[in-house]
Amino acid sequence: MPADAPSEFALPDGVHPFPHKHLTGIAGLQPWEIGFLLNEAEQWIALNRATAKHDDRLAGLTQINAFFENSTRTLLSFEIAGKRLGMDVINMHAAQSSVKKGETLLDTTATLNAMKPDVIVIRHDASGAVGLIADKVDCPVLNAGDGRHEHPTQALLDALTIRRRVGRINGTVVTICGDVLHSRVARSNILLLGTLGAEVRVVAPPTLLPPAVERMGVKAYTDFDAALEGAEVVMMLRLQLERMDGAFVPSPREYHHFYGLTRERLALAAKDALVMHPGPMNRGIEITSDVADDIQQSAITEQVEMGVAVRMACLDVLTRSRRGVEGWA
Amino acid sequence: MPADAPSEFALPDGVHPFPHKHLTGIAGLQPWEIGFLLNEAEQWIALNRATAKHDDRLAGLTQINAFFENSTRTLLSFEIAGKRLGMDVINMHAAQSSVKKGETLLDTTATLNAMKPDVIVIRHDASGAVGLIADKVDCPVLNAGDGRHEHPTQALLDALTIRRRVGRINGTVVTICGDVLHSRVARSNILLLGTLGAEVRVVAPPTLLPPAVERMGVKAYTDFDAALEGAEVVMMLRLQLERMDGAFVPSPREYHHFYGLTRERLALAAKDALVMHPGPMNRGIEITSDVADDIQQSAITEQVEMGVAVRMACLDVLTRSRRGVEGWA
Amino acid sequence: MPADAPSEFALPDGVHPFPHKHLTGIAGLQPWEIGFLLNEAEQWIALNRATAKHDDRLAGLTQINAFFENSTRTLLSFEIAGKRLGMDVINMHAAQSSVKKGETLLDTTATLNAMKPDVIVIRHDASGAVGLIADKVDCPVLNAGDGRHEHPTQALLDALTIRRRVGRINGTVVTICGDVLHSRVARSNILLLGTLGAEVRVVAPPTLLPPAVERMGVKAYTDFDAALEGAEVVMMLRLQLERMDGAFVPSPREYHHFYGLTRERLALAAKDALVMHPGPMNRGIEITSDVADDIQQSAITEQVEMGVAVRMACLDVLTRSRRGVEGWA
Repeated sequence: MPADAPSEFALPDGVHPFPHKHLTGIAGLQPWEIGFLLNEAEQWIALNRATAKHDDRLAGLTQINAFFENSTRTLLSFEIAGKRLGMDVINMHAAQSSVKKGETLLDTTATLNAMKPDVIVIRHDASGAVGLIADKVDCPVLNAGDGRHEHPTQALLDALTIRRRVGRINGTVVTICGDVLHSRVARSNILLLGTLGAEVRVVAPPTLLPPAVERMGVKAYTDFDAALEGAEVVMMLRLQLERMDGAFVPSPREYHHFYGLTRERLALAAKDALVMHPGPMNRGIEITSDVADDIQQSAITEQVEMGVAVRMACLDVLTRSRRGVEGWA
Repeated sequence: MPADAPSEFALPDGVHPFPHKHLTGIAGLQPWEIGFLLNEAEQWIALNRATAKHDDRLAGLTQINAFFENSTRTLLSFEIAGKRLGMDVINMHAAQSSVKKGETLLDTTATLNAMKPDVIVIRHDASGAVGLIADKVDCPVLNAGDGRHEHPTQALLDALTIRRRVGRINGTVVTICGDVLHSRVARSNILLLGTLGAEVRVVAPPTLLPPAVERMGVKAYTDFDAALEGAEVVMMLRLQLERMDGAFVPSPREYHHFYGLTRERLALAAKDALVMHPGPMNRGIEITSDVADDIQQSAITEQVEMGVAVRMACLDVLTRSRRGVEGWA
Repeated sequence: MPADAPSEFALPDGVHPFPHKHLTGIAGLQPWEIGFLLNEAEQWIALNRATAKHDDRLAGLTQINAFFENSTRTLLSFEIAGKRLGMDVINMHAAQSSVKKGETLLDTTATLNAMKPDVIVIRHDASGAVGLIADKVDCPVLNAGDGRHEHPTQALLDALTIRRRVGRINGTVVTICGDVLHSRVARSNILLLGTLGAEVRVVAPPTLLPPAVERMGVKAYTDFDAALEGAEVVMMLRLQLERMDGAFVPSPREYHHFYGLTRERLALAAKDALVMHPGPMNRGIEITSDVADDIQQSAITEQVEMGVAVRMACLDVLTRSRRGVEGWA
């Protein structure tokens, strides 16, 4: 554990570092469990930067990536993570799936389970679908994003990035700007950062803020300038017009005017504030190119790098029990 | 060979257990050849249930899955089977294929062959396409379903499931219900079960029965209730509306009324009759959920599990000759 | 180096055999560099013809195939090449990509780069896109075809085929027939064959010849019969109607009449002239079946085979520096 890790998040004596079978969300995780996953991820960063980037501790295991919703970067990241640990990785794309033939999700799940995977990574456009599947299979399930619910590995990679760049998470002021209402990225981040003691602010047009969002322990703003004051991390969300069925839809130009991160706005945040974005970016809408490409302040590509490390850690940790690793069986 | 295997299906002295280069269908296989593949599959069931589920006897070989027709479960099953045996598995999806650019099937075949695969697994929507390809390539070809012709690994996995659950195939009464006319699953099963001495009945609306189906050695019914009397295995087929070009198309509701397997109908079969379905299921049409999910009688997910084992056996056996395994070269 | 290799193409003393980080095109390569890649490819031909066709010198490395334009044979070839050298190969299909969500090419590139691949293979429909990407990533980039620009591994596999079948490239008369204007295959071949001293002729309808094509060191013809006189190699291009936006489009029948390679026309070339085609073929348009399938003269499937060998050589050579191979670090 890095020196900066606050002592209250250290693993309590006699407590199992990660007693969960699945990782379906951040909700319900203890601060030391999150810290444990982040610490585990650190080791994979160096390996990934080497040329022969392999650790075959998961050799012979089968990972199925069941993506019912299209994705490039998340799928690539999980596929690379699994292969670097030696697993047989099999992708199931929704587009080529029996789902198209009208099969129920539970039947698809039963089919996947019968092929005896050792871990299933699932992305689905319905909130809660991953939890439903997790209840029905024998192996660990990793949520790669389900509807508006959670995207836990995104929150973990964001946390790892913040911890490495800012030096700590506890007490850090993080402003999350964008479509908080529809964003599983925002939701998982709010849960994780709150659990680790960050001060989280969310800012969005009133129609894109969840009702009673303050109950999640965040401060809500509609004025981006006000929300930036003192922010050490500015996390921009993608404007996902495709998810805004029925909601008020701002024009991209209008949105940019009020909620786009520009060089001028960034100056309102704390000095050297970290700029983050889960990608893919709409340049010129939620973020300008000079900010996105700032060598000092932007951590956007580093987030992608941390993503592979975090996913390797999750795959390793979740399969320890079935591999009979000492203390996990 | 399990004790229940009837002696007339034992491998005759001095006979090669599987002298075929390809597996394009069940037609033409001897009973002891089918029995040999089933026996070979048994060993992979236990491996697949372990965590590190690898046997690298096919390491360094190349398997191409050339799927000219979409499929999820069959493709996944073959991909997992090949990878667990250590092969490099490459998927060629029709959707991304030169076929779209007007290339002939034989040119595509020549291209695949020139890349020196060690086995090609093919699914194609034209009956006979797989046999055509098999004639033109240097390596073994495995039929993963071609048109209305054959789907031999499905019949093998069904037979393995029956043999394990019922205890024998010889003499077993099997009722196959559904669109027998268009079904390669039905065709391969009729051939295999007949060869191993089962009593096979088929039941369907008159328009969905092949003309002179009795010549295949089965009893044909149009009354499901009558066909169920004494049945030890009830194998339901998927209602594939997409294949019924020009044929009489029953409404799903009408179909269910006459040919859907319900709890009440199942009671007409033998006590504890086994319920099977190749998937994906149309719940509420050809089968009701209470029957499909019956813990005692339904073998539907077990069929999927047996599928991986059977495909591993086929991949292993078909590549023995080129691997120079003693007695096979 | 084969005995036939002309001495002027031998590697000069003290010169690095391949000092380039990327392979974005043939332009700029020295004759001995091309010769070096061809020599390296020779070793993989025999390996590919064996059953256990593996050399794990690239084990633990990550290869990303980023295909922004659909392709079957080229993608298969690169995937097989990488896997046979032990790499983790990950395919990124444009159809499932963030590009669809409006992400810029450079952002996609930055994302791929952050996942720390050891080599990226790129196909893109925009000329120059691959060079743009190569400038922005840390690892070697291999051009698998970009717009009308270059397709260097196709030219290398064609050269390897010619060298093995004709015995030499220097001084060989090669006639390239077809849509030279839109063809990256033609462009890379003209550059490579010219560099190695072949006499290259191009023949096409006047509207499908690049302006001032003679400046590339070739002789231009519009009369196919005249262009064939004395040709030792006849390389047919695919009629790519899909690329001819705005250009004069001949009807297939008309095209065949003037520019189709028939048995009669082939008789105008040198005795035993080699027939080549990059595939997929439009049989009956640019080439007739009797010519394409001629066992003596057609090298079309051999080209496919050489493709895997050439790509293995390129993947091996381009990653030597990062693998710390002696003399390459």
